[in-house]
Amino acid sequence: MVSTRNPLNIGASARALANFGFARMAVVNPYDVAFREARSAVGAAPLLQKAEDFSSVADAVSECRLVVGTTSVGHRELHHPIRRLEYGARLIRRALAQGNVALLFGSEKFGLSNDDLSHCHWLMRIPTVDQELSMNLGQAVALCLYELARDPKAAAARPEKVRAATAGETEQVAARLLDALHKSGYVHPKNEASTEEKIRRLVLRLQISARDAPVLLGMLRQILWKLDA
Amino acid sequence: MVSTRNPLNIGASARALANFGFARMAVVNPYDVAFREARSAVGAAPLLQKAEDFSSVADAVSECRLVVGTTSVGHRELHHPIRRLEYGARLIRRALAQGNVALLFGSEKFGLSNDDLSHCHWLMRIPTVDQELSMNLGQAVALCLYELARDPKAAAARPEKVRAATAGETEQVAARLLDALHKSGYVHPKNEASTEEKIRRLVLRLQISARDAPVLLGMLRQILWKLDA
Repeated sequence: MVSTRNPLNIGASARALANFGFARMAVVNPYDVAFREARSAVGAAPLLQKAEDFSSVADAVSECRLVVGTTSVGHRELHHPIRRLEYGARLIRRALAQGNVALLFGSEKFGLSNDDLSHCHWLMRIPTVDQELSMNLGQAVALCLYELARDPKAAAARPEKVRAATAGETEQVAARLLDALHKSGYVHPKNEASTEEKIRRLVLRLQISARDAPVLLGMLRQILWKLDA
Repeated sequence: MVSTRNPLNIGASARALANFGFARMAVVNPYDVAFREARSAVGAAPLLQKAEDFSSVADAVSECRLVVGTTSVGHRELHHPIRRLEYGARLIRRALAQGNVALLFGSEKFGLSNDDLSHCHWLMRIPTVDQELSMNLGQAVALCLYELARDPKAAAARPEKVRAATAGETEQVAARLLDALHKSGYVHPKNEASTEEKIRRLVLRLQISARDAPVLLGMLRQILWKLDA
């Protein structure tokens, strides 16, 4: 975090680090030296307490094998390769196997200065629709860390399915519903067979879950009891 | 945005909507009715001005074909299928082809209430490492919108390459460097051939770009001129 003005952004960034499992934060010339008190860190106060404080970018990145700047582009003529976040994050993940990587974020108003940028191997850009409207600093930090922590297979992976009711359970629901419809005069004797089929298909389309089947059965039992009363 | 307490979060969320190309924001029972003044909206003030204001979730989502709640899980026993952001966003993108989709965010302290959740078809979870430490609201909104706006092919796409110098240009750099090293007495006559090879290989490893080659040549020319003087 280089020349950050608003300590709330440093705190929110610390929270994002904690959210996505990152442990080291460094601050270079923050505008407000009381940044460690930022309440926006919420559960990440210990991480914020440990944040290293440097007076130059060179010192902050000295141990890193790769230094990546972040930018919203727009203003400045840039002399670095710029990579989209999704692709840049992949390169960073690969580089992390070799050594430390620094990800630099500039000030809220001006971003990284040309001097800051001269320490960067390349730049990373968040793909916003309008490059003139920059992102909020805390949000930008959260996005970059989210993308870095991203499991490339997660989007393809299917989540645990809700366990479906068995065919027998579903059939019980359909049967009781049919009972109730019979008793309430919904089923015309002439169409009995086709109505029964329609109802079964409808109940199947509901894809009742294992958890909901007994609840529905209970409801129908109660209705049947009332219809018989 | 349901029962949001801090207007700064509403403003930051408006900014994230603008950043990722979303246009409609609705607010349900915000704690601070002056939310429209939030300076955190920055360039998204017009979007914030247009934000619709509802007194119930039911009203806010009435036009939507799909309602998705967001959660950090943890506290509550949940009765909904929960999908990870990456997968949930895919489902939402698909649903958007059919009609409006509402994405609900609860209050900073308590998230969505059970009553709010009862309006949701399913829930989406941001994959943070520690489910006990929730995310900052504005950051969570930005992440969800980023993922929704994500181009699934972006991570695989390679960015425009930096144009490499031609072999001829690189060779000129190597030749001039060798000249300079000769003139400064670096090259021992006995090892001349092997030194020349070493230098060429080193220069090749630098992968000089088309833009940098003339700059390096200029530097070397200047050094050579000084060496000859």
